[in-house]
Amino acid sequence: MNKIIQTLPPANAIDLGMGNPDLSLLPVDTLQRASERAFAKGMRPSLQYGTEQGNGYFRESLADFLTNSFGNKVHGASLLVSNGASSGLDLLTGLVTRPGDTVIVEAPTYFLALRIFADHGLRVLSVPMDDEGLNIDALEEILTRENPKLLYTIPTFQNPSGRTLSLARREKLVELAEKHNFLIVADEVYHLLSLGETAKVLKTFEVLPPKPFALFSNDSENVASINSFSKILAPGLRLGWIQAHANILHKLIASGLFDSGGGLNPFTSAIVHELIEAGDLRKNIALLKEVYSARLQVMDVTLKEMLPQAEFTTPQGGFFYWVRIPGVGTGELRKKVKVFKVDFRQGTLFSADKNMEEYMRLCFAFYGEKEIQEGVRRLTQCLYNVTAKRP
Amino acid sequence: MNKIIQTLPPANAIDLGMGNPDLSLLPVDTLQRASERAFAKGMRPSLQYGTEQGNGYFRESLADFLTNSFGNKVHGASLLVSNGASSGLDLLTGLVTRPGDTVIVEAPTYFLALRIFADHGLRVLSVPMDDEGLNIDALEEILTRENPKLLYTIPTFQNPSGRTLSLARREKLVELAEKHNFLIVADEVYHLLSLGETAKVLKTFEVLPPKPFALFSNDSENVASINSFSKILAPGLRLGWIQAHANILHKLIASGLFDSGGGLNPFTSAIVHELIEAGDLRKNIALLKEVYSARLQVMDVTLKEMLPQAEFTTPQGGFFYWVRIPGVGTGELRKKVKVFKVDFRQGTLFSADKNMEEYMRLCFAFYGEKEIQEGVRRLTQCLYNVTAKRP
Repeated sequence: MNKIIQTLPPANAIDLGMGNPDLSLLPVDTLQRASERAFAKGMRPSLQYGTEQGNGYFRESLADFLTNSFGNKVHGASLLVSNGASSGLDLLTGLVTRPGDTVIVEAPTYFLALRIFADHGLRVLSVPMDDEGLNIDALEEILTRENPKLLYTIPTFQNPSGRTLSLARREKLVELAEKHNFLIVADEVYHLLSLGETAKVLKTFEVLPPKPFALFSNDSENVASINSFSKILAPGLRLGWIQAHANILHKLIASGLFDSGGGLNPFTSAIVHELIEAGDLRKNIALLKEVYSARLQVMDVTLKEMLPQAEFTTPQGGFFYWVRIPGVGTGELRKKVKVFKVDFRQGTLFSADKNMEEYMRLCFAFYGEKEIQEGVRRLTQCLYNVTAKRP
Repeated sequence: MNKIIQTLPPANAIDLGMGNPDLSLLPVDTLQRASERAFAKGMRPSLQYGTEQGNGYFRESLADFLTNSFGNKVHGASLLVSNGASSGLDLLTGLVTRPGDTVIVEAPTYFLALRIFADHGLRVLSVPMDDEGLNIDALEEILTRENPKLLYTIPTFQNPSGRTLSLARREKLVELAEKHNFLIVADEVYHLLSLGETAKVLKTFEVLPPKPFALFSNDSENVASINSFSKILAPGLRLGWIQAHANILHKLIASGLFDSGGGLNPFTSAIVHELIEAGDLRKNIALLKEVYSARLQVMDVTLKEMLPQAEFTTPQGGFFYWVRIPGVGTGELRKKVKVFKVDFRQGTLFSADKNMEEYMRLCFAFYGEKEIQEGVRRLTQCLYNVTAKRP
């Protein structure tokens, strides 16, 4: 159909800035079968007000799936059903902050998280990153003079930078959170989309990212992981989960919103429960990894060929390239994108301090291989037009 | 199934305090067929991130349905898809208040709204009610010295009192909201469940409640109506809507939560769209009215027979009786309910000032006719045990 239902890029343009999954990869048939099974088995109790933490059977099947994926036991009791990662971030932010409080983010970070923090009236401080992710020394320096209530990180295949926080830094970060008593909210929506080795050596083996913060949350009340089916199944379900210590979940559930409306999304939970039980979530992720790996490779090769002056680190998973073009302001560049029927997200969007002017975020998940090539070609033309010289 | 999925009353007890719809009345088959049609017609775009205001086709079919129900034109553009009335209240409260602000509620009011206001750090003032609903003179007196940001009302078949605000008072309330610049949030989830004349004269004719605040919102930015499919279809869908002036909707949509996650519930919206288009929402409400009318009658007759000392006004719709037993503290009474395998919601729950001690809320929607009779019988026994004398 059309933009009466879904968010779409402008017609005729290739918007490499889109962060949506590819429409054609959404597993409609699988969801249809899961929906049929859920109705056949008895949907009635899932149409009543649901238990606050969310459908218990669904949480158990999700926990089993995560146990296999993480290689470590996950309990259904440590999961709370949410409407997606944004909903999880909003709930946790409401729980631990009051307007005027300070939160810490990575530089760069997901720009819509900045919007959610603004809605909560929070003061946002940035910590720089390097190739191993968030810079712990810089954070420690900030903590000598600031008392943040929350630190928001996208530790694996970060949006936008593609970077992954090393295990040593994860451990140190949890230590710091406990010492300074702030809550780490780890946005782990890309954790299961590890593509690195697949892309490099064409699926001969696979390297897992470091231990997710979800697993740290078993032992620490200073860690909560937010996650979602938006990137691994379908955004339109508005279904996700929070994995956190029981004490945090109990505080969330005690809020008026849960008490009044009951748990979030009992109906869709019942459907996705059937899908997971049939092994279709695992299969869907395997398919996504295959397709996205190939697209990542195409973007990599095309960028290196057409934009040799571009600086980037090839991501090992997720959705995004974070590209710096030295000497070129991407704000300036965007003024011409309409002419060249291309677009991207400019770096300043991802910066609490409005810098990162020379960066752009490109997504390799939304478009097919040919469109990625064509998009990068148009971007190159646009760049030559603006800089008025070939590099 | 069981309480792993849904909120349930204690086993063996009749909890006349439950505010859930009757599980056996949830239209599972109708939803199954709607779901099949939605998949058959093409679910794909509804599985992508959705437009912020919600599926446009769904909003149009809902608007047509409301136009017929309200007898006055409703535009799809004036509707925003929510996760239910609690979600709508939470969103609007976040929009117009900051911690420390004052909100006004009715005395009595829906207790979980009080919880949502507490979560937002708000100061809550109560306005007394009489048989015509919220007392406007008392409100005007409060407005001479207070500057509330929001007034929360359940204008029709109120939860818990069953009362309906008269048209004259609705008009005066909107005038006051505009003069003193506060937002009326009207919780109109019972508006379509008008049962009064049906109950009295067995469906020979039907009296509609006064003009809903939803229709006042066309001309006033100081009115917003929150509504839900929880009482007229199924709570587990977690689907509802806000009807408000475009300027209010635009401010809501501009928040980070919507921008990041897209519109709420695209998937379930597509299913309920099919259900409305097939005329099944209208049919479902007609069935509910028939069943609930009979239950209302049974509760009325049984209360008058078994508890002649009880004071109440027979409700004309909705879910609830608000019963006063002069001289009996319902807090005291509840200490004995387990013994008599019965329960209710005590009046103090519904009071921002923790009074209403002699009142209780009874629901006639959750249980069948025989259970209602038996529940009232047990309640009577419990009362005699506590007061130690027959009246």
